[in-house]
Amino acid sequence: MSTKNITPQAYGIPEHFQHWEGDCAEDHNGPFFFAVDAAGQTESVTTAFRVRPENCNAHKTLHGGILMMFADYTLCIAAIGGSHEAVVTVTCNNEFIGPAFDGDLVIGRGEVTRKGGSLIFVRAVIEVDGKPVLTSSAVVKRVKRRES
Amino acid sequence: MSTKNITPQAYGIPEHFQHWEGDCAEDHNGPFFFAVDAAGQTESVTTAFRVRPENCNAHKTLHGGILMMFADYTLCIAAIGGSHEAVVTVTCNNEFIGPAFDGDLVIGRGEVTRKGGSLIFVRAVIEVDGKPVLTSSAVVKRVKRRES
Amino acid sequence: MSTKNITPQAYGIPEHFQHWEGDCAEDHNGPFFFAVDAAGQTESVTTAFRVRPENCNAHKTLHGGILMMFADYTLCIAAIGGSHEAVVTVTCNNEFIGPAFDGDLVIGRGEVTRKGGSLIFVRAVIEVDGKPVLTSSAVVKRVKRRES
Amino acid sequence: MSTKNITPQAYGIPEHFQHWEGDCAEDHNGPFFFAVDAAGQTESVTTAFRVRPENCNAHKTLHGGILMMFADYTLCIAAIGGSHEAVVTVTCNNEFIGPAFDGDLVIGRGEVTRKGGSLIFVRAVIEVDGKPVLTSSAVVKRVKRRES
Repeated sequence: MSTKNITPQAYGIPEHFQHWEGDCAEDHNGPFFFAVDAAGQTESVTTAFRVRPENCNAHKTLHGGILMMFADYTLCIAAIGGSHEAVVTVTCNNEFIGPAFDGDLVIGRGEVTRKGGSLIFVRAVIEVDGKPVLTSSAVVKRVKRRES
Repeated sequence: MSTKNITPQAYGIPEHFQHWEGDCAEDHNGPFFFAVDAAGQTESVTTAFRVRPENCNAHKTLHGGILMMFADYTLCIAAIGGSHEAVVTVTCNNEFIGPAFDGDLVIGRGEVTRKGGSLIFVRAVIEVDGKPVLTSSAVVKRVKRRES
Repeated sequence: MSTKNITPQAYGIPEHFQHWEGDCAEDHNGPFFFAVDAAGQTESVTTAFRVRPENCNAHKTLHGGILMMFADYTLCIAAIGGSHEAVVTVTCNNEFIGPAFDGDLVIGRGEVTRKGGSLIFVRAVIEVDGKPVLTSSAVVKRVKRRES
Repeated sequence: MSTKNITPQAYGIPEHFQHWEGDCAEDHNGPFFFAVDAAGQTESVTTAFRVRPENCNAHKTLHGGILMMFADYTLCIAAIGGSHEAVVTVTCNNEFIGPAFDGDLVIGRGEVTRKGGSLIFVRAVIEVDGKPVLTSSAVVKRVKRRES
């Protein structure tokens, strides 16, 4: 499956957001998008995702698992800061603050608190309409990627 | 969409496992299955899930988000012990211990550590071939369900 | 034991910081101090603590347990925003980002992400010399206090 | 200060428990004790601690910070399994399940879920009278120790 034609516009998301290629699970649920802070100084990224019916649970709200999946995406993208470095999540802690609903535009804001030689520490807030729905923190580990 | 014909056998999962009806997000990714401990004494449940290509990430392993989604399912099912009580997840903490791959049978084991009046405390270990791939803990909150 | 004469100045901490009276465990290790943001608008507090030899571990650095204790203090003070409401910690998650040493001035910054009817969601960053040493998040529960 | 004469018996703790030498912060609050499972096969340890008035908070119950400190001790001792390997805590997540009171004997049970080359994954349950008061999980990192 080619996902080259996945565009933020198709989901009502501003066009400066980019799509990360090659993750089946994310495209099967999202697609998720990200934008790296232009300033470059601060290690921060913004992510975006439009809730669809297949992301919802029996309460007709966004499933907590999908929310954690989007948080994990936000944390990892923040950790690599838009580079192509490979990382794996070691820990991911989540507080569910409020609900999100079908059709909502969900925005993630990730920040690196420390970049070590092997471990990177990251935090994120996931919001809808400027109100937090999830806070999340992670430790991710740098891994060697084998380019084929 | 009717999901009444989702059977564990179709995924190579033992037939004493049951399917929880009505969660689009879970069926879109799983389906996930559960079995309540026959003994009844101990508050424990087992859950099961067969990894498919659309659950995998760019590393060709089970996406961490899907793993957390399955952990959340396991923790909530454990919290309600097979009843139809409604709960929402308040916190969910995860340690990623090892990878799972396409085709793997993923098994979750949930245990309640305390059932309070409004909050229920739960832990889970998610395994593949008897080896832990994720440990997870949660606080879930009982909510009033409005039956329509 | 009266702790009325515990002053921030005695620990080289600015005098607008206050001491919370009546917690033996905190005074036995700290004492810890706090200051509520004057603006009042934002629900944020700052806390302060001077590391002493009896707070250190076998590595001669601030013990992680004491750091979590100070984080818990920061999170609870942030949750109540300088009021005398009683709360108990339900969950407390911590990432250890860097070390602190004997004599260091440790500063905590807490922020409320949501104040619900029974649960309050809070995050904190603990810093030394402006660099994060711990990130922490908590869910705390409001409890009825019996005034005697 | 020599702590060689800190004995479990002085705190009403069974004499097969040992004291870990050289941690000022722990001795200032505990002392804490540990026992490695005789079987040796399973990587599990038991820890013990008697609550004293100086460990209590304004609610006259064991301070959550001291409980997390004891959890951290339990998790680290479990990670090294009674050896003298040096480790530092990377993450420590805690759920506060119930209270402990002055005079209580607090018992910790730690288990390793995975020992990797650099990271060790551990979980613990802290109990009083066989009832859980805290569940905790951690990732700890092996560090090179410089023997002087």
